[in-house]
Amino acid sequence: MGAIPTESAKEHSMKIVVIGASGTVGRAVVAELEQGGAHQISTTGNLFFGPLTQMTAADFNVGLQDKLLGQVRLALVGQHYLSDGGSITLTTGIVGQEPIAQGANATAVNSAVEGFVRAAACELPRGIRINAVSPTVLTESMDVFGPFFPGFEPVPAARAALAYRRSVEGVQSGRVYRVG
Amino acid sequence: MGAIPTESAKEHSMKIVVIGASGTVGRAVVAELEQGGAHQISTTGNLFFGPLTQMTAADFNVGLQDKLLGQVRLALVGQHYLSDGGSITLTTGIVGQEPIAQGANATAVNSAVEGFVRAAACELPRGIRINAVSPTVLTESMDVFGPFFPGFEPVPAARAALAYRRSVEGVQSGRVYRVG
Repeated sequence: MGAIPTESAKEHSMKIVVIGASGTVGRAVVAELEQGGAHQISTTGNLFFGPLTQMTAADFNVGLQDKLLGQVRLALVGQHYLSDGGSITLTTGIVGQEPIAQGANATAVNSAVEGFVRAAACELPRGIRINAVSPTVLTESMDVFGPFFPGFEPVPAARAALAYRRSVEGVQSGRVYRVG
Repeated sequence: MGAIPTESAKEHSMKIVVIGASGTVGRAVVAELEQGGAHQISTTGNLFFGPLTQMTAADFNVGLQDKLLGQVRLALVGQHYLSDGGSITLTTGIVGQEPIAQGANATAVNSAVEGFVRAAACELPRGIRINAVSPTVLTESMDVFGPFFPGFEPVPAARAALAYRRSVEGVQSGRVYRVG
């Protein structure tokens, strides 16, 4: 977790809390947002990858508890601590839309996070907004993940980071910003 | 759970296993499919309903463990027992697409089930197919659920049941049949 104190034109200083700041996306988001902004961002969460024919319910629950419930928990808790008009940005990924081999858990979890964002946007109090960013495979991750994304066009993490800025500093809520 | 032994033109008799056969949709599905068919259907699963501002991660986990992981478990286990070319049909609901008050868990869970279906269809062995049926609010449930669905046009359970037949006896996989 990285906390970035920033200055603003208002009376009080603001903070951006980035959960997952040590990851590839997280680092790019921190670099992008060091230029200003406010609010809560999550770029973290583990999924289960493995062949469907060998998958168990316990395997599947890994992603439910981590990338899904972990991010939902951040939002449920965050709504009580964010300033009026604050922003929550969660992270999904292209596998939510485009299944890949061994990725059934990832497709389900990413779809669930996007569903949560769509619904939570209708109920969050005090003008708090919530969005998700869904990047495709990152250029920086191609050496590890490339074989799982045959023919997918990667994007640099810095491009994904722009979508986080768009979510944090824009006016929309309940949106999924797709990158790639 | 209701097991409906049926006869077929093939050498062996076939069964339709309906998980949730005592529910409103389940009863209609049983009535519809008593006319023939084969394969595994789930029309069951509990969700958590409550205001987002009071929701906890434990509340949210109710739907993850029940309607989501419960149905995923049926599919993960079922793939090992179904005949070649067998069919799995899971149940989501309109709230996956259209958020309602107190329904953040329902939107997320239904979206996850649909994501799972989309991905699992790409990996299921031996020609086994998987689809989901997503009904809107049912005419038969309007006395209980109507207030949560203002302006939604209900459909009779018998119409939803047609979609299950379409899933079971059709040729598609990875589809979500929306009713209403």
